[in-house]
Amino acid sequence: MTDSRARLIYGLHAVKTVLERRPESIVAAWLHERATGKRLAGIEAVLEALGIKVNRAARSALDRQSGGGAHQGVVIEVRAGEEFTVRELEAMVVERGRSLRLLVLDRVEDPRNLGACLRTADACGIDAVIVPQSRAARVTPAARKAATGAAETVPVHRAANLARTLAWLKAAGVWIVGADGTADRSLYESELRTPLAVVVGGEGRGLRRLTRKSCDELVAIPMHGMVASLNVSVACGVVLYELLRRCPVDGRPGTEPPASGSPRGA
Amino acid sequence: MTDSRARLIYGLHAVKTVLERRPESIVAAWLHERATGKRLAGIEAVLEALGIKVNRAARSALDRQSGGGAHQGVVIEVRAGEEFTVRELEAMVVERGRSLRLLVLDRVEDPRNLGACLRTADACGIDAVIVPQSRAARVTPAARKAATGAAETVPVHRAANLARTLAWLKAAGVWIVGADGTADRSLYESELRTPLAVVVGGEGRGLRRLTRKSCDELVAIPMHGMVASLNVSVACGVVLYELLRRCPVDGRPGTEPPASGSPRGA
Repeated sequence: MTDSRARLIYGLHAVKTVLERRPESIVAAWLHERATGKRLAGIEAVLEALGIKVNRAARSALDRQSGGGAHQGVVIEVRAGEEFTVRELEAMVVERGRSLRLLVLDRVEDPRNLGACLRTADACGIDAVIVPQSRAARVTPAARKAATGAAETVPVHRAANLARTLAWLKAAGVWIVGADGTADRSLYESELRTPLAVVVGGEGRGLRRLTRKSCDELVAIPMHGMVASLNVSVACGVVLYELLRRCPVDGRPGTEPPASGSPRGA
Repeated sequence: MTDSRARLIYGLHAVKTVLERRPESIVAAWLHERATGKRLAGIEAVLEALGIKVNRAARSALDRQSGGGAHQGVVIEVRAGEEFTVRELEAMVVERGRSLRLLVLDRVEDPRNLGACLRTADACGIDAVIVPQSRAARVTPAARKAATGAAETVPVHRAANLARTLAWLKAAGVWIVGADGTADRSLYESELRTPLAVVVGGEGRGLRRLTRKSCDELVAIPMHGMVASLNVSVACGVVLYELLRRCPVDGRPGTEPPASGSPRGA
């Protein structure tokens, strides 16, 4: 608990999301000592199937761990900040198949903007965020704060060569949509469909030339005022929610801990 | 130009937006000394009709004023930060009629978030932003920076009693829609229609009880991950763009300087 790279997550919904998305990141778990109810029992079963020791704790201890937040009888500790490797990304692309949703941030340099993008990505059911290795914000404490927990649930892959990663995704059948203020086509005329990677450019600069060339489709967010562009996290929100409106994620497996014990039911 | 409360705005599109939305804020104007073309001539005619002296300047002087930005032969200076009074708000509600779009921020306390909201409001053709007088960020330099110019085009009204202002708007026929995470109805099932005021709550707290009670309709932005809410400027973007998708602003008058000389063609 003194490891600054570890984080506590609590509450039924948050814990289930981690069990679904990043079960490998869980290092410890606490359940209320008099826990009852099917949902907590389901979580306990999945944790045990993952080989994670479930500690029993008094309500007052859970209250302390959650800083008074609504823990609903469950707290977990996750490893934060580990690298999401290119192999893990490739495995995810295969596993998610037609439901894959990725977000690519082309040189977002402000940690608060990165954090807000992670927060939105989590809310929209994005599987992973891809950023370039150079000239891009890292998941700093400021980014974590702005992400309000999403830095622990949304894996971030740092691509050594972003154009090459996009080319690989395209070859794997992923539709690459870039948000670009100069595009002829509006977001609302776009072909958004999964498997998809949404690409958004950094603060005030938009997409780099090579990134733009890597896209299957470029779409513009309509602008009706004086400003030339939106804040990058707002632009992410507008595009990702339009995707969500057209392709709901409700059909995605794994939102309930499966009886099999595997968190993804695979 | 040494007045810190004044700001320079440049480029055809930006200048036209100010002529349409806040002509009274313009204090000076410069046109390229060899300006030709119908669009610059149209802007010059509107400026003169407003009684603003149009100065002629060399390209190099305009380049300096715009800091090297694309001024397209026109720079204006606007007064910034003046109070948008309740009378001006009421006059706007009457004048805009059925096309009215307002954004209400219930206790957004972070200036950067306020700035990003103003930027989005400008992009979405919002007529004015309403904030409460107490416990709300002011339009500070940090807010202005985040607004990237929108602090000069979007009027901000500080309401002494937000619930009373919302009640007045409702009585005037404005549909009040609050974004609220606990609402049963999703944003995508909502009745968004103009004249409209979209109400979004402050960081992490959502709408106050009285504000919630003032709404005609409460809508939830779907959340599919672990986080309980979006960044307030992202939430604004998602709701305002959904409004824009359903009710385009293209029909709005005044995007071209009218021949009559009145910037709003009224």
